[in-house]
Amino acid sequence: MPTEPGRREPAKRSRPNVKDVAARAGVSRATAARALGGYGYSSQEVMERVTEAARELGYEPNRVARTMRSGKSDIIGFVCADISDAFFSSAMRGICDVALDEGSKVIVMNTDDQLSQEQDAARVLLSHEVDGLIITPVSVREHAHIDAVTGAGVPVVSLDRQLSDAGIDSVVADNEAGTANAIHHLIGRGHHRIAYLGSVQPEEPPALRIGKSRASVAGPSRPSLDRVRGYLRALSAAGLPVERELIALVPHDEPGRRTDAVAAMLALGDPPSALFTADSYMTKSAFTLLSERGIAIPGEMSLLGFDDLEWTTLVRPRISVVVQSAYDMGRAAAAQLFAKIAAPESGAGSASVRGQRTVIPTRFLERESVGLVAEPVRGR
Amino acid sequence: MPTEPGRREPAKRSRPNVKDVAARAGVSRATAARALGGYGYSSQEVMERVTEAARELGYEPNRVARTMRSGKSDIIGFVCADISDAFFSSAMRGICDVALDEGSKVIVMNTDDQLSQEQDAARVLLSHEVDGLIITPVSVREHAHIDAVTGAGVPVVSLDRQLSDAGIDSVVADNEAGTANAIHHLIGRGHHRIAYLGSVQPEEPPALRIGKSRASVAGPSRPSLDRVRGYLRALSAAGLPVERELIALVPHDEPGRRTDAVAAMLALGDPPSALFTADSYMTKSAFTLLSERGIAIPGEMSLLGFDDLEWTTLVRPRISVVVQSAYDMGRAAAAQLFAKIAAPESGAGSASVRGQRTVIPTRFLERESVGLVAEPVRGR
Repeated sequence: MPTEPGRREPAKRSRPNVKDVAARAGVSRATAARALGGYGYSSQEVMERVTEAARELGYEPNRVARTMRSGKSDIIGFVCADISDAFFSSAMRGICDVALDEGSKVIVMNTDDQLSQEQDAARVLLSHEVDGLIITPVSVREHAHIDAVTGAGVPVVSLDRQLSDAGIDSVVADNEAGTANAIHHLIGRGHHRIAYLGSVQPEEPPALRIGKSRASVAGPSRPSLDRVRGYLRALSAAGLPVERELIALVPHDEPGRRTDAVAAMLALGDPPSALFTADSYMTKSAFTLLSERGIAIPGEMSLLGFDDLEWTTLVRPRISVVVQSAYDMGRAAAAQLFAKIAAPESGAGSASVRGQRTVIPTRFLERESVGLVAEPVRGR
Repeated sequence: MPTEPGRREPAKRSRPNVKDVAARAGVSRATAARALGGYGYSSQEVMERVTEAARELGYEPNRVARTMRSGKSDIIGFVCADISDAFFSSAMRGICDVALDEGSKVIVMNTDDQLSQEQDAARVLLSHEVDGLIITPVSVREHAHIDAVTGAGVPVVSLDRQLSDAGIDSVVADNEAGTANAIHHLIGRGHHRIAYLGSVQPEEPPALRIGKSRASVAGPSRPSLDRVRGYLRALSAAGLPVERELIALVPHDEPGRRTDAVAAMLALGDPPSALFTADSYMTKSAFTLLSERGIAIPGEMSLLGFDDLEWTTLVRPRISVVVQSAYDMGRAAAAQLFAKIAAPESGAGSASVRGQRTVIPTRFLERESVGLVAEPVRGR
């Protein structure tokens, strides 16, 4: 109702443009444009009149026209697997908060961890003239489309996954150290047979090498592999053997196989006394299966997960976890990106330069899901 | 390493522009620009040569320049309270999926439910020349800044909260019917004293009017109030009295008071037999307090919540809930927005026209948190 108190009259007019400002200020359109755009010469007096007229009319400078002049769009892109995932939406909030302080906005695009969607997203964002790009790359090997972005002079920061060998800045969690620390905690509680349950990229499966004295994972640094490395490192440091049957790596695009992997671990002739679940999906699968089977946590099986979610403190027992702050990672990536946007010469450039790598520490939260193994586990 | 197989040579060059395409096609820059831009006259043969040259060089048309010509930016805005909230990030995914099909991108801005931040976001997005705006308005009364967006000819769709009286399209859940249905379920299980625990906007507190024969809530349609209306309607339909002491409305910006409200309900002389928690935060507070106090659900207290979250099926008992699909709501809002962008004359215009209101149905998921009250509750 137009009579509602405090209500403006129905706004039908389009918003004021430079011509309207010029008319109000009593100057030519070209003069108003110069004063508003901050280019060419304007006398102090004209500048004040035009600014005042713009303020009175509620004139908003046209960003698109300004981009044509300045080459800056004040928009950055965030390319992630799925914005509805808690990790990415928290990271997004961190990115948005930094962008707001920088006077910039964030476009989100989802890849569903499909390389072709990521390539499309990079191309589209480049054509929108974004000032920079934060990306969670699907592949740490196939990055020609990302090189094309940096090649066009648009800074890129890789989030969660590392592309620093390709000359691209990365912000990652300390996946290896965080996992090693968690496994060390389990060992300290008497666990010697600790299962590792994690997800892997189907296109880039890890090459596990388990020798008599040493175990390793070939391949690049990415969270799923670095967590395996942390597991191997902690066992090795404690002088414990690495058993292939205790490591389950499930392709992330086959979620149905997670529960199978947990079930297979429980069905081993010599089952583990603790499960380390390397991502929140696997933690949920393990918790659900243990609950359904009535296997007591931690009495009959200990559980320790990587990544915290709301439910881990609502269930009983509360789940002990390694926590990474997606929000902090998003903030760090955005801060790094805007630093590069402000000073493009430093860091950008040829691919022979190594990108900066920022590691965000994880924390270990001890709760109630890890039990003490009092007796030595039955001998082998 | 530059010797990595399949690796492109380090990309330092900036991306090809119209001049490069013109040189390769052997035509003038103006001719190439006409052919690429699709304006003016180009012969069939020139058109083919230029298109071929553009393809070979990997030329991407400059979106910003195209926006200057077409008036379309192929960007829409999504202004929400907090993208890291599960409701908004799921809605965002729905919006993104529709936008992708429409060849558009989505900029996200957060308001933290603060009107001033929303006003800033609307102004900023308008200056970025977005093609349209999806917004979860902080206030259903203060919308001059949203009127300014529609007044500038930019379509707006309100998500989750209704602004249809202001001539702005809305996509909302059936909050009143969904709640009434849930309360009806509780009544059918023998519950007569049912508590309502919800959040409200501190700036727009509801005016509850509880008469002898009738109870109502004054104020506009918004989820927090429509859910109270559903509660009152179901009690009234069953001939049950409305008791003021059984209704707790907590300002959403004082989360600490949620647990207090649950505790106060439990401390009543004649406590309720069931709690209806009208949002996921309140459901969490209630579940946590009941767990901490060792009050058996549903043996000693039934619990039914509005909104589903991952944890509601991981805890025991599993929580019965009313479910709204934020993803579907996001999709519907985006579909409605793009329809308006394609045909701006229909629906846009003076504020005297009522906006279209799309109601997305909720579903009731019966799980294990509602018990049967066999005996009549103790008399009053």
